[in-house]
Amino acid sequence: MTETRRAAIVGGSGYTGGELIRILLNHPRIELVAVTSRSNEGRSVSKLHPNLRDKTELSFITPDELTAEFTDLDLLFTALPHGKSMELMENYLSISEKIVDLSGDFRLDSPDEYEYWYGEEHVAPELNEQFTYGLPELHRTKITDADYVASPGCTATAAIVPLYPIISELGEGIVRIAVDSKVGSSAGGAKVNPGSHHPERRGVVRSYMPTGHRHTAEMEQELGTKVSFSPHGVETVRGILSTIHVHYEEVPGLGDVWQALRKHYEDEHFVRFVNERKGLYRYPEPKLLNGTNTVEIGFELGQRDDRLVLMAAIDNLVKGAAGQAVQSANLSCGYEETAGLERTGLHPI
Amino acid sequence: MTETRRAAIVGGSGYTGGELIRILLNHPRIELVAVTSRSNEGRSVSKLHPNLRDKTELSFITPDELTAEFTDLDLLFTALPHGKSMELMENYLSISEKIVDLSGDFRLDSPDEYEYWYGEEHVAPELNEQFTYGLPELHRTKITDADYVASPGCTATAAIVPLYPIISELGEGIVRIAVDSKVGSSAGGAKVNPGSHHPERRGVVRSYMPTGHRHTAEMEQELGTKVSFSPHGVETVRGILSTIHVHYEEVPGLGDVWQALRKHYEDEHFVRFVNERKGLYRYPEPKLLNGTNTVEIGFELGQRDDRLVLMAAIDNLVKGAAGQAVQSANLSCGYEETAGLERTGLHPI
Amino acid sequence: MTETRRAAIVGGSGYTGGELIRILLNHPRIELVAVTSRSNEGRSVSKLHPNLRDKTELSFITPDELTAEFTDLDLLFTALPHGKSMELMENYLSISEKIVDLSGDFRLDSPDEYEYWYGEEHVAPELNEQFTYGLPELHRTKITDADYVASPGCTATAAIVPLYPIISELGEGIVRIAVDSKVGSSAGGAKVNPGSHHPERRGVVRSYMPTGHRHTAEMEQELGTKVSFSPHGVETVRGILSTIHVHYEEVPGLGDVWQALRKHYEDEHFVRFVNERKGLYRYPEPKLLNGTNTVEIGFELGQRDDRLVLMAAIDNLVKGAAGQAVQSANLSCGYEETAGLERTGLHPI
Amino acid sequence: MTETRRAAIVGGSGYTGGELIRILLNHPRIELVAVTSRSNEGRSVSKLHPNLRDKTELSFITPDELTAEFTDLDLLFTALPHGKSMELMENYLSISEKIVDLSGDFRLDSPDEYEYWYGEEHVAPELNEQFTYGLPELHRTKITDADYVASPGCTATAAIVPLYPIISELGEGIVRIAVDSKVGSSAGGAKVNPGSHHPERRGVVRSYMPTGHRHTAEMEQELGTKVSFSPHGVETVRGILSTIHVHYEEVPGLGDVWQALRKHYEDEHFVRFVNERKGLYRYPEPKLLNGTNTVEIGFELGQRDDRLVLMAAIDNLVKGAAGQAVQSANLSCGYEETAGLERTGLHPI
Repeated sequence: MTETRRAAIVGGSGYTGGELIRILLNHPRIELVAVTSRSNEGRSVSKLHPNLRDKTELSFITPDELTAEFTDLDLLFTALPHGKSMELMENYLSISEKIVDLSGDFRLDSPDEYEYWYGEEHVAPELNEQFTYGLPELHRTKITDADYVASPGCTATAAIVPLYPIISELGEGIVRIAVDSKVGSSAGGAKVNPGSHHPERRGVVRSYMPTGHRHTAEMEQELGTKVSFSPHGVETVRGILSTIHVHYEEVPGLGDVWQALRKHYEDEHFVRFVNERKGLYRYPEPKLLNGTNTVEIGFELGQRDDRLVLMAAIDNLVKGAAGQAVQSANLSCGYEETAGLERTGLHPI
Repeated sequence: MTETRRAAIVGGSGYTGGELIRILLNHPRIELVAVTSRSNEGRSVSKLHPNLRDKTELSFITPDELTAEFTDLDLLFTALPHGKSMELMENYLSISEKIVDLSGDFRLDSPDEYEYWYGEEHVAPELNEQFTYGLPELHRTKITDADYVASPGCTATAAIVPLYPIISELGEGIVRIAVDSKVGSSAGGAKVNPGSHHPERRGVVRSYMPTGHRHTAEMEQELGTKVSFSPHGVETVRGILSTIHVHYEEVPGLGDVWQALRKHYEDEHFVRFVNERKGLYRYPEPKLLNGTNTVEIGFELGQRDDRLVLMAAIDNLVKGAAGQAVQSANLSCGYEETAGLERTGLHPI
Repeated sequence: MTETRRAAIVGGSGYTGGELIRILLNHPRIELVAVTSRSNEGRSVSKLHPNLRDKTELSFITPDELTAEFTDLDLLFTALPHGKSMELMENYLSISEKIVDLSGDFRLDSPDEYEYWYGEEHVAPELNEQFTYGLPELHRTKITDADYVASPGCTATAAIVPLYPIISELGEGIVRIAVDSKVGSSAGGAKVNPGSHHPERRGVVRSYMPTGHRHTAEMEQELGTKVSFSPHGVETVRGILSTIHVHYEEVPGLGDVWQALRKHYEDEHFVRFVNERKGLYRYPEPKLLNGTNTVEIGFELGQRDDRLVLMAAIDNLVKGAAGQAVQSANLSCGYEETAGLERTGLHPI
Repeated sequence: MTETRRAAIVGGSGYTGGELIRILLNHPRIELVAVTSRSNEGRSVSKLHPNLRDKTELSFITPDELTAEFTDLDLLFTALPHGKSMELMENYLSISEKIVDLSGDFRLDSPDEYEYWYGEEHVAPELNEQFTYGLPELHRTKITDADYVASPGCTATAAIVPLYPIISELGEGIVRIAVDSKVGSSAGGAKVNPGSHHPERRGVVRSYMPTGHRHTAEMEQELGTKVSFSPHGVETVRGILSTIHVHYEEVPGLGDVWQALRKHYEDEHFVRFVNERKGLYRYPEPKLLNGTNTVEIGFELGQRDDRLVLMAAIDNLVKGAAGQAVQSANLSCGYEETAGLERTGLHPI
């Protein structure tokens, strides 16, 4: 099953939409045929995504034009705000065989959890059941078999990937887990707001929902344990670094941690262990990952305080959003998992 | 005892030295008479500290010129690298009545602890006993009575100040404490190194000694409890934000936390509580504190995960170094504690 | 005439307004009694200007409350958008004896010039005549005698101050003048807009009106010669660096340039010459001037291409706006010109 | 002639070397067989270039190992400091059929000019004659026929490319030309120095050699006219924006400028015109070009002051160095000019 598929993007004016376009334009098996944006109808896609000048002739269409007749789609990426996606999904199911949704709407197995964390009722619980959580490193087989994928949140990805092997293999004796994330400004989206005004946002180290952030729900669902999560806005555009303080009754040994990580990720193409004794980049560093689909994982052991410090870095718009969505689409379509996702990061940057 | 005193600075070429000079030049009661720098002998102070152009005619002298005859000092600030300070302190005691040391050498009560954290023997344990830990919000009376003050480390200040009231008043039931700090590049000092090279350092979120950092020792000494500490370099020059995850068996109530903070700091001139429901600056934000001696403290409660998230911000070179040193000197000299330390921060910045 | 005066600010919610408040709160002779902001009526001033927490109890009032009865004003700073100021000025003249206007409305002597550059008719030409252009280094005597001052634009200040002595003393043989400015994001004001969204604005080197910028009008008026002006947005919040390419038929000698600069500015408190052969800060550097009212001027001579390169740095919100306005107010009130404006910059920053 | 060629890099530890490695590892026709660095012998290439982790197994060899026997090279990139290259070139000519040199040593036709601008004698003038200036947009045919290419300087590229069509087609009546460049910190190289220390370098707008910069020599040679050049360090790692003030007796018309640009560059793959009436990116913006080989060119006309403002943006390490070197190598080898150089920039970034 390696024929080319026709794909479209709903909600292509935002940053995640822009990255989806960039990746799909370079994808060997996917032909991007339509991108919607209600407020930008008729405008050239490269007006909003100026990095795509000379790369595409596409113009935005309205979502209303996205009909089965018009587009003949195999694959649809929906990059809509939370709430909007579940409202409109029924229609999209009738248009495209396969769907990768990048909103938060179909990530949680339980509609009750959705209501708890998002503060509103889930309006399409029967569709919710049909979606698979799209974290390939954890659910490769299920995603391969799935037609509908709910792609994970960015900070959730940067917490679940490093924590999963630890909790699976060394979960006993864990006392508490605090995930302290540092996040670039693009995670707040393309929409202007007072907090994103450059004179205010530049150089901040800004606590954002130090308790009660929604992505906690995904972490706890995937990890099966309680997680304390506190994100911070820092001075970069792209990138997340998660520092994960895993407090143990008795901290595991170095070999145990390596064994757990290797068991799960030794052969993962998009996972890279970073643990150097020397040099400038001893631990995961998000800026090196700009534009790539890689997760860097590192760790350090605190014998004195029985703590394992896990560190993980990603590009929030790629492995944390568009890249991971394409990775899942590749699996679902029977393509090479890495198709369209091979890109070398830059240094210095 | 409010007469003017004659002061000097040993080690005035670094960033802390520069801030000491700036503050003392504006101090109503202190006359800065000499600043040493062995490698910059004879150079104008403002060549290294270009913000002081037009503000001072001082030139660096060598430490050897700093004799009792030459300077007739009342007050000496020693801003030397760790290890150097304890080596030379005997001499300085003979020159000046009062000393504020900004190195790590006299901060720890126990020479054994020093050896454990700094990896070398303490060479002046008998002098060590004579120094008082210079955190005025905790030890005002002792500092007022002291002639020799060991001024705290920057990340230690940003952890101890917010944690002290909590541990004093609400210490029971604490399971673990993780201090996750985000620190500007000036905390690494004025000396060039590969990690501070702009193309490498810009935009990083860099884990630095995620376990085993020396400032942990000060935190544990002052707080009387185990603390897990992980600093990170982030993209600012000045500023520290500490996010402190206090894990409880059962998290205290909102009123209890406010009561603890107010009991200790209600009347503290340099402590400011920041806890807004709206606006851009709901929690402590280091960039607003550039150049000021203020500690901002905020917090949020996690009912679901029994966690108190404390946040604290300071300027690492002022409240974290030079400003706090002058604050202690003011107490020791019988001056207004705030003398020379009133400066309004900038916004936007 | 050194008694204290009562002052108010119209339009206090923006960045210039905030800086005016900060400066006036620390002014020895001025009592700030009211700050208006229609959209923030009743809100505490420090909610919008969080650096002023603990520094003031003032709340915003509406402009309508600003009546002669209510405020009994001696001095009024109007920091309104262009166009608004000339519309409302008549009223303000009846409220306050002295007025410093920070808009562009009363800067140009000729209403025709206003119309040419601002694209709309000047609605109060008869008031316009009563205003003095508030650049103290050029017009000290006139400002001292004036009650109504139009404070210069930020990029205009950073061009006129360095160019004035050159054109006055060495104006002959100048072929062309290009002013190439690099400007921080705060110059765009406090209002959110798509271009100021952090993910877009960060790290740009953005040409903004490379020809036809309004501040050109002020430059040409004050300098009496044609000037080509091109500003750029760069990655800082505060600060302007003007690089001024003065093309000569035959470039003047080093001594001539020094003589011209010294003749005009040798005794100017807020002008500093920066021309070092060594060190990191050989030429003017805006970041060192954050929060100060200083203009740094440097230069270099190109013998080969008969060009004098003038460089000038200011803080756009202080010497480029609020600070210079207070400097003029000081003159007009008969105070020390430097009152409230002594602040040492920070290094590093 | 499209067979694969074996290539090596001399001087692979710097930033240009790193970019060469990155590009060559992704090149369809070039096999990178060796990279030298005397001080890093035996170290894995990815230790210095951490973006290449998982991308290469290469380790640095010493230059001494780079013999004809050992490497059997077709193509050699020399990325050595100025002065070093001309000293060692004789030897390299005996090792490799084709050479692309990235130093300044062979860029100037006249050894006298070299001596004037570089302050030292050219030690290999007879080799100098054999090198072709490697700016494909100007010298495509010559480079295609050449075996030895001297690749242009970064700021020279960002000035020559936009100016060449203007001077060729609309050169008459030009009075003066000032090239005012804004440059990221990576242009200063990978070597630590006081000026690149992050607390000093961050947020600067730093004039660097406002007169007399060496790259002027290349500009004047290629353009055949006098150019006034002033570079500035600004707060980015990568990227150059050149603002070029072309002063005319009488400025040409809009259509003339477009015609000149189109005549020369209409079909140039790596030249993109950027001139939008709306949107955030109306003019060239270097940050969008990170990692790409594109030159963006825009312009604006000043009728009032008879000035054409040209703007050009590049990534200094790609089109300004490694990318352009590979572009020339492609021509010389008979490959597609774009081979290995197709990379889409990122947005936001």
